Amino acid sequence: MIFSVHVEVRLRPGIADPQGSTIERALPTLGFDGVKGVRVGKSIRFDIDAADESAARAEADDLCRRFLTNPVIEDAVIHVEAGAAAGATS
Amino acid sequence: MIFSVHVEVRLRPGIADPQGSTIERALPTLGFDGVKGVRVGKSIRFDIDAADESAARAEADDLCRRFLTNPVIEDAVIHVEAGAAAGATS
Repeated sequence: MIFSVHVEVRLRPGIADPQGSTIERALPTLGFDGVKGVRVGKSIRFDIDAADESAARAEADDLCRRFLTNPVIEDAVIHVEAGAAAGATS
Repeated sequence: MIFSVHVEVRLRPGIADPQGSTIERALPTLGFDGVKGVRVGKSIRFDIDAADESAARAEADDLCRRFLTNPVIEDAVIHVEAGAAAGATS
């Protein structure tokens, strides 16, 4: 059975985010006031073929911990849904 | 009033994703079979100070269209919620 997985990888609170800080510093001169706390992370989507949802979640957890994130500085939020993601061809 | 905004930026269907393809090609040798359609995008979170939710959404839409995405190759999905994001300091 195919499960669609969405992983949001974000920097842990307190870890410096130079990309986010640069966006935040630039925005007032571009006409956007009142935007604060910009944090840039990664969003990874894929399909997993697994027996059931808990197996899919376990495999996604393992994948995230070992290859998709750096657990020292990043947190991952994992969403698993039944069914292949539309348009997920690479 | 402060609104917490989450923007998921993803490549449009059909646009080549070399980063996703590289991950996908590497996974079988790392022991993960059955993972397909890996797509890597960006996840941007920030807080907006706006009068109401529709004003916050309009400002976030404008920001995304003009600066955070390349509309030729990328789509943005925007979520707006009342309240500042926890730990959103940069």
